[in-house]
Amino acid sequence: MTELAPFHAHSSKPMSEAEFEAAIRAVGAERYHDKHPFHKLLHGGKLNKGQVQAWALNRYCYQAAVPRKDAALMSRVHDRELRREWIHRIHDHDGLGEEPGGIERWLVLTDGLGLDRDYVISMEGALPATRFAVEAYVRFVVEQPLVVAVASSLTELFAPSIHRERIAGMLENYDFIDDKVMAYFKRRLTQAPRDSEFALSYVKKNAHTRAEQEACVAAVRFKCNTLWAQLDALNHAYVAPGIVPPGAFKPE
Amino acid sequence: MTELAPFHAHSSKPMSEAEFEAAIRAVGAERYHDKHPFHKLLHGGKLNKGQVQAWALNRYCYQAAVPRKDAALMSRVHDRELRREWIHRIHDHDGLGEEPGGIERWLVLTDGLGLDRDYVISMEGALPATRFAVEAYVRFVVEQPLVVAVASSLTELFAPSIHRERIAGMLENYDFIDDKVMAYFKRRLTQAPRDSEFALSYVKKNAHTRAEQEACVAAVRFKCNTLWAQLDALNHAYVAPGIVPPGAFKPE
Repeated sequence: MTELAPFHAHSSKPMSEAEFEAAIRAVGAERYHDKHPFHKLLHGGKLNKGQVQAWALNRYCYQAAVPRKDAALMSRVHDRELRREWIHRIHDHDGLGEEPGGIERWLVLTDGLGLDRDYVISMEGALPATRFAVEAYVRFVVEQPLVVAVASSLTELFAPSIHRERIAGMLENYDFIDDKVMAYFKRRLTQAPRDSEFALSYVKKNAHTRAEQEACVAAVRFKCNTLWAQLDALNHAYVAPGIVPPGAFKPE
Repeated sequence: MTELAPFHAHSSKPMSEAEFEAAIRAVGAERYHDKHPFHKLLHGGKLNKGQVQAWALNRYCYQAAVPRKDAALMSRVHDRELRREWIHRIHDHDGLGEEPGGIERWLVLTDGLGLDRDYVISMEGALPATRFAVEAYVRFVVEQPLVVAVASSLTELFAPSIHRERIAGMLENYDFIDDKVMAYFKRRLTQAPRDSEFALSYVKKNAHTRAEQEACVAAVRFKCNTLWAQLDALNHAYVAPGIVPPGAFKPE
């Protein structure tokens, strides 16, 4: 039944917590970006180094935006306990004190791929579609009701399996990838489940009406779209048909 | 010369760093809220307990808004190093892990004054003008250029002297105030200078044109206005003439 939930938008009866969670998880099963052909190529060792570079420098835009997204969400939160919980996400990405954080680990990956760090950080070579998708996510958490903004983070429910698959697939299939450059994904194996459990429980507790629940499910769909659109753009530019937009990164 | 800076709005030559800093400090000398008659009454022991309660519960609105303001600022920052520095402000107010933070210390003050904690947190008894002023500050950092948003924090340059005066004056003059409830201000004696030094150096480095510098000076003036307006409202409601707005806290 739960996979039908999105079609009952005008039903007034709230879903049970189990139905609600199942509706959220059904979005991942249907459209999380692990289903995208580009990811299958990436993990299966079917890309050349230039294509992996293009993926890594575009994905940097997303990594770099996540702390701004989380700060934007926190700027709307009047509940101190929620802020005290959510701030860990910023620590995870920006680091704190001696801990360098996930963005730095991502730059270790792009270093390892032989990309110039300043070029990656400048985002000059990134695809415009990547940046539009990423900024759409930042705006979403500013503009949507708080519980819906929180729900948009729930793609993390689906992340650990893609990260496990990616670590194994990339280490096995590419001679330019080693353990050190995969540190980002190893770290996320423990961070993402902690965060997504909190967010899932928050959303269950704070989405009261059927309309709120459906808006939360739609938020997960929206977030999946922002991830999928990034891979569409990569695929179009660097795989098939392989038309690199003006100004974007051109592999050697 | 520097005190004339605000009158040269159309001059195209940037101020020297020393002139710029002096112009910022001149704003404090002219209009920081330590000059407000209400603060003189507060620190001089001239208020009764109900009036001190009114001050503390209104000021809570400001304390509680500061982490949202800082998160709003961070949500606009693309420079990871600046975010890694700025996040300490959120830790200072919200706490981190075992450290309870400044808002909790403020509630220790309102507890000590005999106010119900839920009532304080609800902000139901706060003056509307307090909340308007506080939210104007949050919006300011969202809407203004980043360097101007950073500059609005520079009232912290003037805070340590008011805190020292407040700690001494309130401990000496009120039998309902003890060391424990003044913990918030003691902590700020070390936090505020660290933050304001960083922000001052950032603003000096990043306000390049005369127009940007003047916008930064104006930001400090704006921020002083948000603090001053809060004391005007307190004074009007609880001192002279003493007209408490409908729904606002009424001392027993």
